[in-house]
Amino acid sequence: MADGTESFDLAHPKGVTRLVYGRGALAEGGGRLDGELAATSLFVVSSRPVLDLHAGLLDPLTGRAGSVTWIEVPDGEAAKSVAEAEALWRKLLAGGCRRDAWIVGFGGGSVTDLAGFAAGTLSRGIRWVAAPTTLLAQVDAAVGGKTAIDLPQGKNAVGVFHHPALVLAETEVLGTLSRAQRRHGLVEAIKTAAMLDATLLDRIERSLGRLLDGDLEALAPVAAATARVKARVVERDPDEAGERQLLNFGHTLGHAIEAETGFGAFAHGDAVAWGLRFALRLSRLDSGDARLAARLEAMLDALAPPPLPALSAEALVARMAGDKKARAGGLGWVLLGAPGAGRFGVRIPADRVLGELEEFLGHGGAGSL
Amino acid sequence: MADGTESFDLAHPKGVTRLVYGRGALAEGGGRLDGELAATSLFVVSSRPVLDLHAGLLDPLTGRAGSVTWIEVPDGEAAKSVAEAEALWRKLLAGGCRRDAWIVGFGGGSVTDLAGFAAGTLSRGIRWVAAPTTLLAQVDAAVGGKTAIDLPQGKNAVGVFHHPALVLAETEVLGTLSRAQRRHGLVEAIKTAAMLDATLLDRIERSLGRLLDGDLEALAPVAAATARVKARVVERDPDEAGERQLLNFGHTLGHAIEAETGFGAFAHGDAVAWGLRFALRLSRLDSGDARLAARLEAMLDALAPPPLPALSAEALVARMAGDKKARAGGLGWVLLGAPGAGRFGVRIPADRVLGELEEFLGHGGAGSL
Repeated sequence: MADGTESFDLAHPKGVTRLVYGRGALAEGGGRLDGELAATSLFVVSSRPVLDLHAGLLDPLTGRAGSVTWIEVPDGEAAKSVAEAEALWRKLLAGGCRRDAWIVGFGGGSVTDLAGFAAGTLSRGIRWVAAPTTLLAQVDAAVGGKTAIDLPQGKNAVGVFHHPALVLAETEVLGTLSRAQRRHGLVEAIKTAAMLDATLLDRIERSLGRLLDGDLEALAPVAAATARVKARVVERDPDEAGERQLLNFGHTLGHAIEAETGFGAFAHGDAVAWGLRFALRLSRLDSGDARLAARLEAMLDALAPPPLPALSAEALVARMAGDKKARAGGLGWVLLGAPGAGRFGVRIPADRVLGELEEFLGHGGAGSL
Repeated sequence: MADGTESFDLAHPKGVTRLVYGRGALAEGGGRLDGELAATSLFVVSSRPVLDLHAGLLDPLTGRAGSVTWIEVPDGEAAKSVAEAEALWRKLLAGGCRRDAWIVGFGGGSVTDLAGFAAGTLSRGIRWVAAPTTLLAQVDAAVGGKTAIDLPQGKNAVGVFHHPALVLAETEVLGTLSRAQRRHGLVEAIKTAAMLDATLLDRIERSLGRLLDGDLEALAPVAAATARVKARVVERDPDEAGERQLLNFGHTLGHAIEAETGFGAFAHGDAVAWGLRFALRLSRLDSGDARLAARLEAMLDALAPPPLPALSAEALVARMAGDKKARAGGLGWVLLGAPGAGRFGVRIPADRVLGELEEFLGHGGAGSL
């Protein structure tokens, strides 16, 4: 696979997304759209650092298009604001973006989240291509049709389901990531595997050092395999009424950490790493699999996310109560089950969560298990 | 029907909308939600003038809800801006609006468009009720799942399809409308009937004086009948890939007039009236039914929309080229066919449109036919 691509489909209520992973994914995608692009206006939404490194990879798309408009957005979480969404809508309209255009989101998860949100809302929906350039976006953000922007009150508070027509994940770009960026993606891969695929979890566990070091021979197949696992659960539960909620493992506290620290100050992947640790703690109290919890804890230790800043347990609990996944009846927690078989919708009394969180934060998180 | 309600369903890709029209529609809707509302947070989105006149009509909903949060938005087209959408998102979140809440859009078409857009995008979609209080909203805006806000570059440039669970159209409120507000609704009713239902068109034509004068015995059944006709075409073509485009009759130039005059300065219904006149002119050139065109022209004369401000034909043509319904291949016009059977997707060379529009504007529109 290091010398080729693998493709698979994700069927969703509005159609089918084709996902292409591997070396040459963008070239293959360009070939796939060959007949269509000549008569099409292409709008590339990307960030300066990504374009500086990788703009040439888009040649197979841009070279075939009738016209190309390049629109720059901020890198990272700063892209996901109402102001940036409005600026993007205006630039797309000013560039003549109409219903028969294509939007390409080229970058990390924040760029694809914003580009997908613009595509999902401009003219009530325009076709788009997700071209994720980080491990996190390739294994998680670009798969499943979720698009969103943040509000101060909540991560991904505003968004729509709008599946891309294509996900083109060029795995060669993973070689240019920083160790921290690889860590952020691996956190999400571990999350997905722990909830849904014991075999994938074994594989990640065995090769964690190589993955973290940026060995493309190890990274590329794990990116594709994780995306495949996610695609299957999204197909079975597109609206997150049931088992898709498993993918929120670690995200309940993770999103609260991001909101409480101001979006972008503490990376999503690292916030989720801490969220996973806290979910493991709750899982143990709730008769979760202790051996599996210890394995996951060891993997998170190896990833070594940066320490949490000082945060108030009360403030985090308030953030979680305002999470969009909360219901009037409270939060449903995603907890550990057997390897590759998590549990969701677990109710835990709020005062118990607060007590556990106070201890968790008091001991710096990791040591408190 | 003046003493009761009539109900019908609109099946769409995500479920079924129940529409209730008549005296007591809100009471019937409240009864329908009886079991559900007690455990529910209700968020009423409305404008000051509507609340001053009609807030009490919502008692059957608000009286049953677990909690009620009232959120005020501007009246009219001013509601449909990015800034107002952001303010609404923030107020909804600050009020604790979660996925199991209900949003109620209570007002004219601008209020229901904005409330529906917020409902469609907050937490990727929250259930909502459209409670339209103008004739225009009851016959058109609140039916069919379109939600939107405007950008300077285009009317309804940003939006999503997000059908309400219920449309509750209390027809008693039509008695409080101004003659201009009734005119705006009748323009849309005539549009729908001309394209889709010859019997309804006959009925509107026969009773036009009473409708315009505000006779509820005439207005209430026409509101329900027009909504029914629209619901049927939306069911057959939810994504506007085909015959739903008929409902854009008069809207191509109409939206350009609204954009060119600044949104809100010239009412949507009046802009569509002028758009219909221009579409009738193009229809005649394109071998449309001359007798039907004359009937429609006479009805528009009776409605007597205010004169157009001075506008540049070139600027309007540029606006139309940027319309979200435009394709790379140009605009598809909606033109007259037989009574109750319009045509859509008709291509007319841009220079021809420009020439016709110059003459149309030069003669003040109406007289130029």
